[in-house]
Amino acid sequence: MATRTGWNFHELYLWHDTGNAATWYPPGLAIEPGEHAENPATKRRFKNLMEVSGLADRLVRIDAAPLDADDLALFHTRDYIARIKAQSDAGGGDASYLTPFGKGGYEIACLSAGGTYAIMDAVLSGTVDNAYALVRPPGHHAERDRGLGFCLFGNVPIAILKARRKHGFLRIATVDWDVHHGNGTEQAFYEDPGVLTISIHQDRLFPGNRGAREDRGANAGLGFNLNVPLSPGCGHGAYVAVFEQIVLPALERYQPEAIVVPSGFDAAAIDPHAAVCCCTARHIGP
Amino acid sequence: MATRTGWNFHELYLWHDTGNAATWYPPGLAIEPGEHAENPATKRRFKNLMEVSGLADRLVRIDAAPLDADDLALFHTRDYIARIKAQSDAGGGDASYLTPFGKGGYEIACLSAGGTYAIMDAVLSGTVDNAYALVRPPGHHAERDRGLGFCLFGNVPIAILKARRKHGFLRIATVDWDVHHGNGTEQAFYEDPGVLTISIHQDRLFPGNRGAREDRGANAGLGFNLNVPLSPGCGHGAYVAVFEQIVLPALERYQPEAIVVPSGFDAAAIDPHAAVCCCTARHIGP
Amino acid sequence: MATRTGWNFHELYLWHDTGNAATWYPPGLAIEPGEHAENPATKRRFKNLMEVSGLADRLVRIDAAPLDADDLALFHTRDYIARIKAQSDAGGGDASYLTPFGKGGYEIACLSAGGTYAIMDAVLSGTVDNAYALVRPPGHHAERDRGLGFCLFGNVPIAILKARRKHGFLRIATVDWDVHHGNGTEQAFYEDPGVLTISIHQDRLFPGNRGAREDRGANAGLGFNLNVPLSPGCGHGAYVAVFEQIVLPALERYQPEAIVVPSGFDAAAIDPHAAVCCCTARHIGP
Amino acid sequence: MATRTGWNFHELYLWHDTGNAATWYPPGLAIEPGEHAENPATKRRFKNLMEVSGLADRLVRIDAAPLDADDLALFHTRDYIARIKAQSDAGGGDASYLTPFGKGGYEIACLSAGGTYAIMDAVLSGTVDNAYALVRPPGHHAERDRGLGFCLFGNVPIAILKARRKHGFLRIATVDWDVHHGNGTEQAFYEDPGVLTISIHQDRLFPGNRGAREDRGANAGLGFNLNVPLSPGCGHGAYVAVFEQIVLPALERYQPEAIVVPSGFDAAAIDPHAAVCCCTARHIGP
Repeated sequence: MATRTGWNFHELYLWHDTGNAATWYPPGLAIEPGEHAENPATKRRFKNLMEVSGLADRLVRIDAAPLDADDLALFHTRDYIARIKAQSDAGGGDASYLTPFGKGGYEIACLSAGGTYAIMDAVLSGTVDNAYALVRPPGHHAERDRGLGFCLFGNVPIAILKARRKHGFLRIATVDWDVHHGNGTEQAFYEDPGVLTISIHQDRLFPGNRGAREDRGANAGLGFNLNVPLSPGCGHGAYVAVFEQIVLPALERYQPEAIVVPSGFDAAAIDPHAAVCCCTARHIGP
Repeated sequence: MATRTGWNFHELYLWHDTGNAATWYPPGLAIEPGEHAENPATKRRFKNLMEVSGLADRLVRIDAAPLDADDLALFHTRDYIARIKAQSDAGGGDASYLTPFGKGGYEIACLSAGGTYAIMDAVLSGTVDNAYALVRPPGHHAERDRGLGFCLFGNVPIAILKARRKHGFLRIATVDWDVHHGNGTEQAFYEDPGVLTISIHQDRLFPGNRGAREDRGANAGLGFNLNVPLSPGCGHGAYVAVFEQIVLPALERYQPEAIVVPSGFDAAAIDPHAAVCCCTARHIGP
Repeated sequence: MATRTGWNFHELYLWHDTGNAATWYPPGLAIEPGEHAENPATKRRFKNLMEVSGLADRLVRIDAAPLDADDLALFHTRDYIARIKAQSDAGGGDASYLTPFGKGGYEIACLSAGGTYAIMDAVLSGTVDNAYALVRPPGHHAERDRGLGFCLFGNVPIAILKARRKHGFLRIATVDWDVHHGNGTEQAFYEDPGVLTISIHQDRLFPGNRGAREDRGANAGLGFNLNVPLSPGCGHGAYVAVFEQIVLPALERYQPEAIVVPSGFDAAAIDPHAAVCCCTARHIGP
Repeated sequence: MATRTGWNFHELYLWHDTGNAATWYPPGLAIEPGEHAENPATKRRFKNLMEVSGLADRLVRIDAAPLDADDLALFHTRDYIARIKAQSDAGGGDASYLTPFGKGGYEIACLSAGGTYAIMDAVLSGTVDNAYALVRPPGHHAERDRGLGFCLFGNVPIAILKARRKHGFLRIATVDWDVHHGNGTEQAFYEDPGVLTISIHQDRLFPGNRGAREDRGANAGLGFNLNVPLSPGCGHGAYVAVFEQIVLPALERYQPEAIVVPSGFDAAAIDPHAAVCCCTARHIGP
């Protein structure tokens, strides 16, 4: 039987307003306003290509409801949630470090977390075999009490914690191949052996002081956090080696019932925000 | 001898950040973020055409220094000035009604007022015969204690009041042909016979409750404020008639030593924000 | 029973590339490249709002196949079709007057015609009660042997002529409320009593020499073409009167089996390309 | 005495229209139209920062006249020049490989070459000590009989050849630190000992089959062409070493009377089109 792949998308994800910036630097008297690096355009282009290529037609559309404050509180502090809600209602703000959002940003972030939960629930319920959520804002940098790096709420930790309530205790693995360290997801499960958190990232890229190989979890969670910092320029071969020699063996040992991939695409050769694969030869004619 | 025309422009004027909007509506859960109507693009295009056409080369460039809080206080309350400065330092805000600005917006607005003063000073000093300031943000809606309609500080009132200090008491006329009522300029000089304020505007367009024909000034200023509200669709002919029959005679009577034109271009036929001239026949081939 | 409303959209419609322009003027040494008036942004915004508002969820999605050259030839000359195809294959061109298109523009235009046909077929087949096609490029200016005014192929004439082949001879009415004259649709059925073509438009706006009240059809089609040129500034009331006193009575007399609305939105008050409704009072606070 | 630095810029450089693309791929049925990599925005941003930072005020503005077909023919074939002119007059075209241009592109390219010549002439005439031309389109890929890689005409070869006519035979060196090989400049002077052409570039990036270390010039020019292909990821240190150990010694030996730097900025760490410096550590807080 053919694999059934689900996907979640909502137009509101692309209405999350990161304002103007120079890449991620806020504009001011020395920085001309320009496009923010985390903007709707790249995700819309991605989604548009899914449509035109016919891929979207072959997937199972999974709709989502927004999560609520109680859901968010599975990971975040009530204070932080209330602060974001208040700022959002008042016209927008900054969740803390380079994480701007506009009016309604709270609701969009709740929907983004909802989309992440919805596909996880669909997979765990057996509706589909696997699934992809094209959500925005992203989540893997968000910590308990603060946003970080364009991330307001920890979509993946929240979704896992909520899924546990419905589907019972599960062994879940996260394989975060975003080129930055998945510090928020790590924080959520650092003492929790029920989630094996793996992050493959460029060494000390962002957040600069996180993602060390030595950070292996604590207490009951010791040994269930796996950081794989990579050197700039390591290239495609390093990724193949990391997956064959580290990630797959770890997953084999852990035997997760589900695998969640925080799927940032910024390890790509063409992405200017990182450098792991940029040295891949690119020979263009003539 | 050829007329010497000055002009003022500063690249920072185009860094004033009005953020995203749908025309002027702030984005949110029901309004997709888009381009703000008062954005740098139109002014940059205007300036670029001045360059390419060779016009800029025929003008005398007049540089400007930013005005300071004491200058602004010639018109605005100290509280309002301090509030805008504080918001600007903190990353931006809204000067009150649909008047968003970003970090450094205070300094850019001070420079915009400075550019307006600089050309006025150049004319009054005889350096040039007349002059144009391509400044941003605009000013004519700003009132003593609040911004309004994209305007932070009253560039023209401030410049006139400062010029008086340097050049002595002057009879000055303002002819505001922006399609919206020049409420801030009117407020500044409503009781002042030293400035004849004239505003030609679409009737009750914005601000909706201002600009009536009956508003003629008060106390010593009675008779020195002239509002000419025009009906939508009145067209080019109405403007010619207004100038020939109302504005020029009033100027002849008043005999101003200088004329200041708050020169919004939104009465133009192609501008979607107003309707005074839009009915002008536009016949395009073939 | 609830009305079933269908709609057609395809992402490729928004990939039709009109290039850069100043509104519709091609850029050059005196015109800075800018956004073309007929660009994807406005249609995408419209579609996005359909999604976010929940409207799209309440409609029946109607998918479409592209029409082929034989379908296009129901209205257009084979020479014109072949020319557009050749230019499209070679990287793009201009269908004649201000009608630029890029590589693949032929295929997108075939799909746009296909979407128009698909919703017509769905209504005539009884699948839905009525339907809307959010297609691009538009079609109502395209004539037998040339494109015009951003229109490559006559979506509506082609769809009607193809529908006739499947559903038998039908009495069809077109009510073109785009603010410009529907010259292509008129041309297609000028001698055909089987289609009552009605165009309500701003008088001599575009194309400048078309759309006169006297143009009532010819030969067998005499009396089956109805032009209603309106004056700039006529306003909402004129539209109500035209519909009540002219359009509805004409439709009552004709008793069409289906009504097709070439639904340009450029009669809107806020649209800068026309002036029929722009004088509608727009009072904005505070 | 302070160094006098000149600079040339003309607004028309930013009106050169490269149309829509996905980076450099022409749009079509599988590629959504987007921004072309060689677009005005980056250069305008650069120029704007020169203005706001005050740098522009400290430079000597050098105006330029466009070069004419006879000037271009110092390097290019008459056929190629005539073809570009004809395409430009007809609305635009492609100079050959990924080198689109719009109407008036010929004239803008003539002005870009003129700006390059103007600063060279100013330096050779002693008006300034050194100078920078912020021109567009670029030139170093353009060959005798074809454009290439966004370059229409060889600005630098043309300027050098024209300068020789005015200033007499000169020993000139070119140090092309654009990350791509300067194939056009190399071609122009491959047999000419009067110009030492040096290119430091990412190995086989573009054009893929050019820029080898073995290509050292021919006939009288043998030994006067120096290619330094660098590996992806080589980093800042490699550049320092190349300059200290190869470029400066070569310049010392050659004793040029002037040095011309085709100054592409695409070797920068943040530029996604190359990879020489992208591995530079970028540690961002918090």
